[in-house]
Amino acid sequence: MITALAGGVGAARLLRGMVEIMAPGDITAVVNVGDDTDLHGLHICPDLDTVLYTLADAINPETGWGLAGETWRVMESLQKLGGVTWFNLGDQDLATHCYRTQRLAEGATLGTVTAELAERFGVGVRLLPVTDDPLRTRLLLAGGDEVAFQEYFVKLHHQVAVREVRFAGAGNARPGPGVLEAIAAADTVVVCPSNPVVSIDPVVAVSGVAGALTARREQVVAVSPIVAGAALKGPADRLLVEMGFESSVVGVARWYAPWVSTLVIDEADAALAPSVEAEGVRCVVAPTIMSDVKRSAALAQVVLDAGS
Amino acid sequence: MITALAGGVGAARLLRGMVEIMAPGDITAVVNVGDDTDLHGLHICPDLDTVLYTLADAINPETGWGLAGETWRVMESLQKLGGVTWFNLGDQDLATHCYRTQRLAEGATLGTVTAELAERFGVGVRLLPVTDDPLRTRLLLAGGDEVAFQEYFVKLHHQVAVREVRFAGAGNARPGPGVLEAIAAADTVVVCPSNPVVSIDPVVAVSGVAGALTARREQVVAVSPIVAGAALKGPADRLLVEMGFESSVVGVARWYAPWVSTLVIDEADAALAPSVEAEGVRCVVAPTIMSDVKRSAALAQVVLDAGS
Repeated sequence: MITALAGGVGAARLLRGMVEIMAPGDITAVVNVGDDTDLHGLHICPDLDTVLYTLADAINPETGWGLAGETWRVMESLQKLGGVTWFNLGDQDLATHCYRTQRLAEGATLGTVTAELAERFGVGVRLLPVTDDPLRTRLLLAGGDEVAFQEYFVKLHHQVAVREVRFAGAGNARPGPGVLEAIAAADTVVVCPSNPVVSIDPVVAVSGVAGALTARREQVVAVSPIVAGAALKGPADRLLVEMGFESSVVGVARWYAPWVSTLVIDEADAALAPSVEAEGVRCVVAPTIMSDVKRSAALAQVVLDAGS
Repeated sequence: MITALAGGVGAARLLRGMVEIMAPGDITAVVNVGDDTDLHGLHICPDLDTVLYTLADAINPETGWGLAGETWRVMESLQKLGGVTWFNLGDQDLATHCYRTQRLAEGATLGTVTAELAERFGVGVRLLPVTDDPLRTRLLLAGGDEVAFQEYFVKLHHQVAVREVRFAGAGNARPGPGVLEAIAAADTVVVCPSNPVVSIDPVVAVSGVAGALTARREQVVAVSPIVAGAALKGPADRLLVEMGFESSVVGVARWYAPWVSTLVIDEADAALAPSVEAEGVRCVVAPTIMSDVKRSAALAQVVLDAGS
């Protein structure tokens, strides 16, 4: 049994590889919801959807988010109306948000709706939002403004300096049903190669999760999202530096060290393995670039081996 | 200056005819919002949109609602997900609802958002939701269930017996900015050929509107939505009977008599003119079937003449 802490694209690809080498039903993904946003009245869960669509082999392969064969009729019309279009939502993707929002309005929890969507998309991996409660990643910018995650990530293209990251609601957010149990029961807990600062940290910020991870530290294996000093995607490199950490696998190791015992780093960073171990984290060197499903599966195998 | 009380399709067509014979800026439409519904988190205003799209010459001519050249990508995907699809929303139409819902979430009133949409659609008629407050038409069915208007109208295809019509929120709904003033200042107040029971009555139920209309009774001209005993569209005929009125122009005259001085009826009902007048309502006989813009304009001229 594997439990994975997951953000968006990197997590989705590792999970997609994992279902090549083990039964989907033996995998639980605990997914970040700090990126969630409400727009046009719709409740949008970018990380959950990226994981969902990727596992369903329905992801848009060019963007890494959204659905393949997507059309943009609604957004085209909304643009003509002068509506909010900086957060691009395809027509098929909108159906997911309509479904989710309606079910939430009917009183279903996010966890229940996510399970329903996973079933409809034919995804056998158990997808758990880390919490059913509101939890929103917010960024205090160097300029003094505080913005929601998607505003930072999409609207501002994360091209702004960040002073502080906050998880609004984390103090009251309870772990979703099954989350703590999945961490406690897993043979290996996998920290997917997601942004430590804004994808994994909001998961860990939910009450009880950090303790559950610390209790399983020996079984927790992380994959570095930083390769050769840079994030493969997104602002993880810059955010680590802004939080006072190195933008390197050593910075990642230090960030995760309290509750991670093993870090998988890319071959490009092999020379840094001793520095990773100096942080008190076992180091495994392997190819980590998941450019196709075969490579994702190979990395998943490395992670499983590292955990056993 | 003309102020029109408006429901959906019939009202939209009369207003479309009216802009052929007078300046759009001299027309105010006070539109029913009792049909409004929240679905998928979106705030949907069917009557406002039908009037808006028709005046913009963007209406789907085949259905009488929705937009021309519409596509259904979102609904097709939502159906695959097992979502709520009995209320059909086209992709372009969804953009309108996304725009409205987002603006309402930002704190704009429904009146403000409606004015914005009218401007974007190039509609010069002033469109006023009768109220910015929640007002929802609900139907107590003969079987004992109470349903929202769209559930009755669309989901149940209005093929159920109605015991009572209620306007939830009417007690607290204040008339929107300009509504009472538009009724007071109009040379003629036009009651469009909309359903008296579920399109016009919720407008009149808003506090102050009935009084404002009664004060202008001599200037209020209605067009009968009943022709030869039947509604041209929708359940007006059956609802009138269920409310204890005749399904005829005489029933319409009796329904409106407290605040309407003149009723325009179709030539098919010419023989009933004396019975209409016996209700204390002046009767004007004219062709009322608005099968094209030319006929709509001709009917609009009849109405203007009747009011002057």
